[in-house]
Amino acid sequence: MQLSETVEIRGHLLDSGTLTKILDDIRDYGGDYVIERFDVGKDHDDESYAQIVVTAADDNLSRLVNRLQGHGVNPVDPGEVEIRPTDADGVFPDDFYSTTNLETFVRLGGEWIRVENPEMDCGLLVVDNRVRTIPVSEVKAGDRIVCGTSGVRVVPVIPQVDRSGGAFEFMNSEVSSEKPQALLVRQIADQMREVKAGGGKILWVGGPAVVHTGAAPAMVALVEAGFVDVLFAGNALATHDIEAALFGTSLGVDLSRGRGVEHGHEHHIRAINKIRRAGSIAAAVENGLLTGGVMHAMVEAGKPFVLVGSVRDDGPLPDVYTDVIEGQRAMRAELSGVGFAIMVATMLHSVATGNILPASIPLVCVDINQATVTKLADRGSAQARGIVTDIGLFLEQLTLELVPDYRHP
Amino acid sequence: MQLSETVEIRGHLLDSGTLTKILDDIRDYGGDYVIERFDVGKDHDDESYAQIVVTAADDNLSRLVNRLQGHGVNPVDPGEVEIRPTDADGVFPDDFYSTTNLETFVRLGGEWIRVENPEMDCGLLVVDNRVRTIPVSEVKAGDRIVCGTSGVRVVPVIPQVDRSGGAFEFMNSEVSSEKPQALLVRQIADQMREVKAGGGKILWVGGPAVVHTGAAPAMVALVEAGFVDVLFAGNALATHDIEAALFGTSLGVDLSRGRGVEHGHEHHIRAINKIRRAGSIAAAVENGLLTGGVMHAMVEAGKPFVLVGSVRDDGPLPDVYTDVIEGQRAMRAELSGVGFAIMVATMLHSVATGNILPASIPLVCVDINQATVTKLADRGSAQARGIVTDIGLFLEQLTLELVPDYRHP
Amino acid sequence: MQLSETVEIRGHLLDSGTLTKILDDIRDYGGDYVIERFDVGKDHDDESYAQIVVTAADDNLSRLVNRLQGHGVNPVDPGEVEIRPTDADGVFPDDFYSTTNLETFVRLGGEWIRVENPEMDCGLLVVDNRVRTIPVSEVKAGDRIVCGTSGVRVVPVIPQVDRSGGAFEFMNSEVSSEKPQALLVRQIADQMREVKAGGGKILWVGGPAVVHTGAAPAMVALVEAGFVDVLFAGNALATHDIEAALFGTSLGVDLSRGRGVEHGHEHHIRAINKIRRAGSIAAAVENGLLTGGVMHAMVEAGKPFVLVGSVRDDGPLPDVYTDVIEGQRAMRAELSGVGFAIMVATMLHSVATGNILPASIPLVCVDINQATVTKLADRGSAQARGIVTDIGLFLEQLTLELVPDYRHP
Amino acid sequence: MQLSETVEIRGHLLDSGTLTKILDDIRDYGGDYVIERFDVGKDHDDESYAQIVVTAADDNLSRLVNRLQGHGVNPVDPGEVEIRPTDADGVFPDDFYSTTNLETFVRLGGEWIRVENPEMDCGLLVVDNRVRTIPVSEVKAGDRIVCGTSGVRVVPVIPQVDRSGGAFEFMNSEVSSEKPQALLVRQIADQMREVKAGGGKILWVGGPAVVHTGAAPAMVALVEAGFVDVLFAGNALATHDIEAALFGTSLGVDLSRGRGVEHGHEHHIRAINKIRRAGSIAAAVENGLLTGGVMHAMVEAGKPFVLVGSVRDDGPLPDVYTDVIEGQRAMRAELSGVGFAIMVATMLHSVATGNILPASIPLVCVDINQATVTKLADRGSAQARGIVTDIGLFLEQLTLELVPDYRHP
Repeated sequence: MQLSETVEIRGHLLDSGTLTKILDDIRDYGGDYVIERFDVGKDHDDESYAQIVVTAADDNLSRLVNRLQGHGVNPVDPGEVEIRPTDADGVFPDDFYSTTNLETFVRLGGEWIRVENPEMDCGLLVVDNRVRTIPVSEVKAGDRIVCGTSGVRVVPVIPQVDRSGGAFEFMNSEVSSEKPQALLVRQIADQMREVKAGGGKILWVGGPAVVHTGAAPAMVALVEAGFVDVLFAGNALATHDIEAALFGTSLGVDLSRGRGVEHGHEHHIRAINKIRRAGSIAAAVENGLLTGGVMHAMVEAGKPFVLVGSVRDDGPLPDVYTDVIEGQRAMRAELSGVGFAIMVATMLHSVATGNILPASIPLVCVDINQATVTKLADRGSAQARGIVTDIGLFLEQLTLELVPDYRHP
Repeated sequence: MQLSETVEIRGHLLDSGTLTKILDDIRDYGGDYVIERFDVGKDHDDESYAQIVVTAADDNLSRLVNRLQGHGVNPVDPGEVEIRPTDADGVFPDDFYSTTNLETFVRLGGEWIRVENPEMDCGLLVVDNRVRTIPVSEVKAGDRIVCGTSGVRVVPVIPQVDRSGGAFEFMNSEVSSEKPQALLVRQIADQMREVKAGGGKILWVGGPAVVHTGAAPAMVALVEAGFVDVLFAGNALATHDIEAALFGTSLGVDLSRGRGVEHGHEHHIRAINKIRRAGSIAAAVENGLLTGGVMHAMVEAGKPFVLVGSVRDDGPLPDVYTDVIEGQRAMRAELSGVGFAIMVATMLHSVATGNILPASIPLVCVDINQATVTKLADRGSAQARGIVTDIGLFLEQLTLELVPDYRHP
Repeated sequence: MQLSETVEIRGHLLDSGTLTKILDDIRDYGGDYVIERFDVGKDHDDESYAQIVVTAADDNLSRLVNRLQGHGVNPVDPGEVEIRPTDADGVFPDDFYSTTNLETFVRLGGEWIRVENPEMDCGLLVVDNRVRTIPVSEVKAGDRIVCGTSGVRVVPVIPQVDRSGGAFEFMNSEVSSEKPQALLVRQIADQMREVKAGGGKILWVGGPAVVHTGAAPAMVALVEAGFVDVLFAGNALATHDIEAALFGTSLGVDLSRGRGVEHGHEHHIRAINKIRRAGSIAAAVENGLLTGGVMHAMVEAGKPFVLVGSVRDDGPLPDVYTDVIEGQRAMRAELSGVGFAIMVATMLHSVATGNILPASIPLVCVDINQATVTKLADRGSAQARGIVTDIGLFLEQLTLELVPDYRHP
Repeated sequence: MQLSETVEIRGHLLDSGTLTKILDDIRDYGGDYVIERFDVGKDHDDESYAQIVVTAADDNLSRLVNRLQGHGVNPVDPGEVEIRPTDADGVFPDDFYSTTNLETFVRLGGEWIRVENPEMDCGLLVVDNRVRTIPVSEVKAGDRIVCGTSGVRVVPVIPQVDRSGGAFEFMNSEVSSEKPQALLVRQIADQMREVKAGGGKILWVGGPAVVHTGAAPAMVALVEAGFVDVLFAGNALATHDIEAALFGTSLGVDLSRGRGVEHGHEHHIRAINKIRRAGSIAAAVENGLLTGGVMHAMVEAGKPFVLVGSVRDDGPLPDVYTDVIEGQRAMRAELSGVGFAIMVATMLHSVATGNILPASIPLVCVDINQATVTKLADRGSAQARGIVTDIGLFLEQLTLELVPDYRHP
């Protein structure tokens, strides 16, 4: 049986391509549409408004509307929210509302309540008069979960279409290595300074190539200058950074030769063993074992880091969360106050961070591999930018912009 | 202070490039060498023999010799093994012997004892008269661990240099997409049949692109025909496979459109929720919820799979190990009897599997991304082969070779 | 000074993203717009209609309108065509109309005359009552060239938005290696059979990887079965194909080893020398020197090929055009009757062919390198599709579809 | 029938992997070997010496020995040179000696004559008592050409194996993006200064990404500071550079948006038309039309450039050689005095230049695409180094090293 729902959206529907994506999604779900009303924004500053009747098979319609909310589309009739208790730990009701990472409101007792900590692919948990996102692994039997799309509104992120030459310029254009890179670096430096000036934190997510490309000194300078407030990474970045600090001087060859292969040497497993003996990275800094590198700088600066393990880890370091769900929990706990996120040279941890970030936090993903950048930029958030470039030179150049007296050793 | 050790190696040192790698490594560790004796293999069937005096700084020499053993080099004087108890849980003695993935022997009480389950980057645990590898995370205070390189011998893997046209041909040549692919597929099919005929198991390691490239039907045919004995994967392969099985029919678009993006839809999180409600993948097969796809085929065929989670997982499925150390343990438990390993379209799980596989098990890594294949082929094991190709067509073609009546639906 | 022009477009403006591209281009040229009228296509079969007032600086407006015609936008007031003689060989008037590759009409004497052989980045030459495209290198002093955009109309290509599951499905979706490849191959095979059934020719453009990936036997089967009517390539494809035919048997190693490096051996330069002595590829077939491979099959089948040289060529073969302008001319001469173009594993010749093809000829570009495919698919023609896959397996699989009794040797 | 020849080689055979390559090649040609004598270099400064009896089928032996000379292997018995006139224009005798790019000597009248302008894949032309390389396309009937390998010696390039930390470090290690890039840039800057100090010329080979990545200002600074003595490129680099100079200011968007697509706009074809009207790039500089960019800087600095066309060119610019053989000739004419070659962001022109460069000229190839760099580094010349990095940031950083007061505009 085919059912219909009338939905609406307001915004820069044409020049952003939003309307195209909406119509695409409707067809993807086997649905159909009639555009009932379309008030076009006459000039490029004006918003457009569309009212669309969406038709789909009974059991798909609610899911399709749920999906469309990811583009900022909402039902014309807000309806009444439906809340049902879940009947088992770690399981949502079948028709749970699946969240986007956008600003979301739930109609409770005639009022629109703002959802706390927006995160995609979660459920909505209602406790008293408050609503927050909850991952499926955290839900307990009896938790009151929003079901269906009735009584839920999503506020579209409206990227300000400013073509006058500022930071927006490269946001919406396609990811490519053929870009004026020096300009992009400068724009990111500007944005970082702005975020810091406004009291926001800068979150870094990094892979081991930060060390392999010789960018650790640049990264240390950024930590010392206060541009790294939180660091998310895996066992590899920390291990290779510590390995370089512990063995780099005596051997002096690894980094000048640039051999960043995971199993090139036994250094990494000995480095891990030494830190395990110390008990933690901080303890190794304290007892004088670890005297340089990015992790040392983070400890010295008193800045938090969250290292989450993966199945390919050796060791791991004692600071690494070996349970990934606990790791995600620890990452979420550090998001408060973050005003900008930059992800360099790691697919795994970048996607992981993207998963839990609200769409309101601007993020940049930098990698030499176009596929990584595309995957991240395609997360469906208007705020993601991708830069295809060399991590070593990128960090070098960014540090030159932010820490004027920095010189590569 | 500079110390010296005389080491020796026998094998195809020249045409395999082994000697070049040995001399390279010596220089990498800041060491030096004198080739005391070199008996060259006159013709291409003859082995060569080299005796080399290696010199390095005091604290590096033992580690360097440890490193060289990865190429099959051993001290001329086997010496006496040194065994010391470790003093804390999860920590090796500082000078622990760091294992390779090669056949290794330890001299105990005048006898050479074969090390059980060779695995790289582990320690050697001595219990009574037996020696086995143990990862650092599993070691307990008081465990007796081999230290230094004295009394340890490694047996080099000697790839048989058969140029007559068989499977060896592409092993040693460089990884490239410009290869006669149809021929490679046929060689792999031949090798799989041989392994099965000899009673060996075939281990598959796969990423979600198996599903995204439309190769699930081919993979199902391979499971049903008995060519998939064990499957290692993450949450993503299983989720997307189950998502296609649960939602593919009703919507019918995802796979024909080829949209494999992680967060393209809410399907995956609903699929996960349904399986969480069922309790496990097997339970979902049992209760009739899951009726198709790769995971269904594995359950029906009674074949084991190990799914290990990662920090970017949604859900995850109830079968997924969220603790990566437990996951590694579960993977190790399934290695017994494996005679061939094939890794398709996953960097993370391929490296993880490579980490725990002994060098004696031949492995093939297939990916469209040259960097992934290179990383895996560079693991330093003579047995690794890399193929840069399309996963969808590769699995299609391989299935046509192994299951003659297979037809793509 | 700012000037304005009212333009209009009719078609699937929303779900194809066309309108987004139009508005983007206006801002790129520093222009501005007011959407005066927008009649939205209510449901997905209906076309939309937009009337837009475009404003730009004096000297940019005409160029901007010229640019917009590439999307099928035309001035509401067709105006009178302006034709001026060019004053020098090889040079257009400054304000020449720069062509798209779409169907174009010029208003001559009150009638709309259809432009012969549409090709992008050319001028429009008027001779008597006929209009045809002419490249800048071919123009002669005194030639009558269309200037400005007045009196020129372009007919947008309207891709039929058929979501029922046919060939269109993958046209508009993004280029990616994560696609159901077996399905794509089947769709291309279907389209080839259709084109042949309708009397159209199939144009192939190929790079040397056709030979390196072991796909020459598959390609030969396609030639023999009549699916290769014209072949465009460079010196490399023909040389490596002939080299394999001349030296492959006696040495037997190159292809089974898959060493496709340009300068791996002296074979290629000796192969070239032998064909130069024969005088041409056809002469070498005639005199019994060349008895196998793709070029041999083309000669035997009596099918034309155009080989155009590049600066990195050795030799080259006697059939190769060393002058690229002459080469382009020879390629244009073979386009008549072509109903489908397929480009495999060559960036250079694919772009070259894309440059001269009218938008009405569907084209597919196949390469393992995503960047190549993206570059080609981005040509701005609605008819281009990109497939990221392995050439060897792709040609193998395509041949299995088209030549049922084909078996890889 | 099997024939044998005794060959010898002296040098760093083990740590460079040369011997491995030699034995590989022998088996590739279906040949066999006996190592008759092997005097191993005891320590890492000592050269080794090998004497090898090579056996192969009659018609392959001479070609195999010809091939081996590319590694610096020579017959023990130099023999007498065989010189035969060629019987037709543009054709060598069948058994012509196919050159390497190494220092080569020919035994004429009892004396070893040095071959002028070494270049690979050519023939050796004897005129009076002089010998020089000649490409097959340039040979005339009656020219006296060296045949077979008798009387020809090749001097191996012996890369000095200096591990103390200088420029050599990264030469022999594998191409990868995971390298300490800032260090590599500094090493290249050092080498450029050295070459200039020694009176050598620096040859640049560039693709259009130099412009697209916003690196034109850096490149202009390098030209003005005297670090660009010769430039080889195609139509694209010059066109996009001139397009940016002519249209960049008025529109101001292209480069800040980073849209480098070939057919993004009609700018390029109008830019070409303007220069065609002027007659040449130099004339356009002279008449004040062209006032900025890389090509303008080259003209102002009085430095030569060679632009060679390709089949995908629009226009082309009047300075472009449309005949590729004439283009190669023009490139060869500019090689004299070149002491260092750097190739950035172009596969086509880099390979073309590599083809004609003697092995004695060090070369660096820089590209963001690993495949391009590998292809070039694999040319078989000991002097090639590859760097996988971002062109924009690389040129920015290199300019900061070489032109201290440079600032990105």
